[in-house]
Amino acid sequence: MAPLSVSVVGGGVIGLSIAWECARRGHAVTVYDPDPGRGASHVAAGMLAPVGESYFGERELTALLLECARRWPGYAAELAAASGHELGHRTEGTLQVGLTADDLAELRRLWTHQRELGADVVALDADGLREREPLLNPRARGVLVESDHQVDPRRVVAALRELVPVRREAVRRLSDLEADVVVLAAGCASAALGGLPVRPVQGAVLRLRGQAAPRHVIRGYADGRAVYLVPRRDGEVLVGATVEERADGHATAGGVRDLLRAATDLVPELAEHALVEVSVGQRPGTADNGPIVGELAPGVLVATGHYRHGVLAAPYTASAVADLVDGATLPLLWEPFSPQRLTGRR
Amino acid sequence: MAPLSVSVVGGGVIGLSIAWECARRGHAVTVYDPDPGRGASHVAAGMLAPVGESYFGERELTALLLECARRWPGYAAELAAASGHELGHRTEGTLQVGLTADDLAELRRLWTHQRELGADVVALDADGLREREPLLNPRARGVLVESDHQVDPRRVVAALRELVPVRREAVRRLSDLEADVVVLAAGCASAALGGLPVRPVQGAVLRLRGQAAPRHVIRGYADGRAVYLVPRRDGEVLVGATVEERADGHATAGGVRDLLRAATDLVPELAEHALVEVSVGQRPGTADNGPIVGELAPGVLVATGHYRHGVLAAPYTASAVADLVDGATLPLLWEPFSPQRLTGRR
Repeated sequence: MAPLSVSVVGGGVIGLSIAWECARRGHAVTVYDPDPGRGASHVAAGMLAPVGESYFGERELTALLLECARRWPGYAAELAAASGHELGHRTEGTLQVGLTADDLAELRRLWTHQRELGADVVALDADGLREREPLLNPRARGVLVESDHQVDPRRVVAALRELVPVRREAVRRLSDLEADVVVLAAGCASAALGGLPVRPVQGAVLRLRGQAAPRHVIRGYADGRAVYLVPRRDGEVLVGATVEERADGHATAGGVRDLLRAATDLVPELAEHALVEVSVGQRPGTADNGPIVGELAPGVLVATGHYRHGVLAAPYTASAVADLVDGATLPLLWEPFSPQRLTGRR
Repeated sequence: MAPLSVSVVGGGVIGLSIAWECARRGHAVTVYDPDPGRGASHVAAGMLAPVGESYFGERELTALLLECARRWPGYAAELAAASGHELGHRTEGTLQVGLTADDLAELRRLWTHQRELGADVVALDADGLREREPLLNPRARGVLVESDHQVDPRRVVAALRELVPVRREAVRRLSDLEADVVVLAAGCASAALGGLPVRPVQGAVLRLRGQAAPRHVIRGYADGRAVYLVPRRDGEVLVGATVEERADGHATAGGVRDLLRAATDLVPELAEHALVEVSVGQRPGTADNGPIVGELAPGVLVATGHYRHGVLAAPYTASAVADLVDGATLPLLWEPFSPQRLTGRR
């Protein structure tokens, strides 16, 4: 078919990956963003963790995210090759751990659920856990989920920016854009631009640096406080994340306190690390925690509302949206995530 | 006597206040600092607290700091009038509080010591404390020290900068400066410039903003963790401070965690506040915690090593150094704080 002009509104990991996929299929692409990659993508941890992110009662979302994760290894290899960038893709797996009896009771419920999904939840005894992760609090107990990986979202954004042209402009109305297809991928800003029920769910993330870092992504509970630790190859350890229904751009004192307590309870060594960054982002949340991907109007597509899953879902979202640009229908796994389910419009 | 040319190396609160005092006495003053006011002064809490900062075995330092504090009300009025700046000078007094029996045992030793110094340590019962400071944890117990006040160091720097000329240049050698008198007031950088035994003692300070703030400066212990809370008139609440023998410019995760725990233990409401700034400074420390003020060599004076007391000591330091510039001798209270006591040189 003939190449189309495609304007993508939003230069985060979703918009950029859509733009690259459309460009790879021969379309003429422009991304619009006044500050590309500085929204939720700049704060995101980059866990590729459909198992760890799987919650009771979200079977359709979990099925989608499992497929998203299966696509990442190939996508990471292609993106690294095309851009010449290292993406921080790490496949050591994720330790899910707890400290107290209550923490472990909560985790056991999750592990049962995760095994029912068919996930490879590998039980470890105390020695096995300590051998894999010597910096863990000796009181910690847990499992390894081999299939939950990570990538560095800031590196992904930098790689994608090599491959697609970005105009550093704010778009005020979608109708201002002259293109065969407009794709709205503006995260929380999609609410105003597209009349969509996306709400900001604020999250604070800390970045630490020090001598010794864990080898694996570690997530779990420390005396009831949820936390995840994501070690980068360059020595940075990301600690996340608060989940707050506010949008003032600031972390709360109590939220940061609880992240630091949980992180240093699970890996005491981290207390000596330098706190090098406190960053706050707005996740684009939806009523059912699922993304919004589909056609809004003739010539206007949308891909937003990815909530906690934008990095994980980016490659498959990009391919699904490019299918729509090419006139194909969405893969079946995406059917539950149309805009119409939330807007009631047809 | 004839006006002299005076070059002051260092544009923090010490260097700037010396420069203003010399200018007021008719001398021709220039301050050198590549980034004025951005060292320890930018991080300092600005507690004017000779009582709260009085430790066993530091009688000469306490005597000096008590006189420093007596000078602040007059100095603040003069500086505000001369500059047209509001300085955030607050005289509500300081609450010294603790939560646990151990905290209070430690505090009672301090209060006995403080009363022996003649300080106005006012006992408060639980109702009296709650009435004065309704946001305090109801478990807190403590006293009011009426004479321990506060000022906002960033405002003091801004005010002084209206009144003295600053050249934004780094000085590499004191001998590069052509002036009748050179004054070394460069905080930690004085070590290299003057061959002085000043070491950086790093401290992290947090700044919070929220709806409700305490009325008083609050300092004390929360389950063994030392903390102070300094509420500004503009709604900011400063939380300090770590004391760390490192100089990497970063707060540690454990240090920030403990400050936030102690702050929110004493004033639970602060957990909801936004964490708007984490700043780290290097206090210029000396072996005996006292400042270094005096003549280093003919035509070269020094005022550094103020450690935790730079803001409190600035007005009296300025007047003492200006006396030396004018050829007078130092007031008696300053005799224990000569550079020669530490260098062994004469």
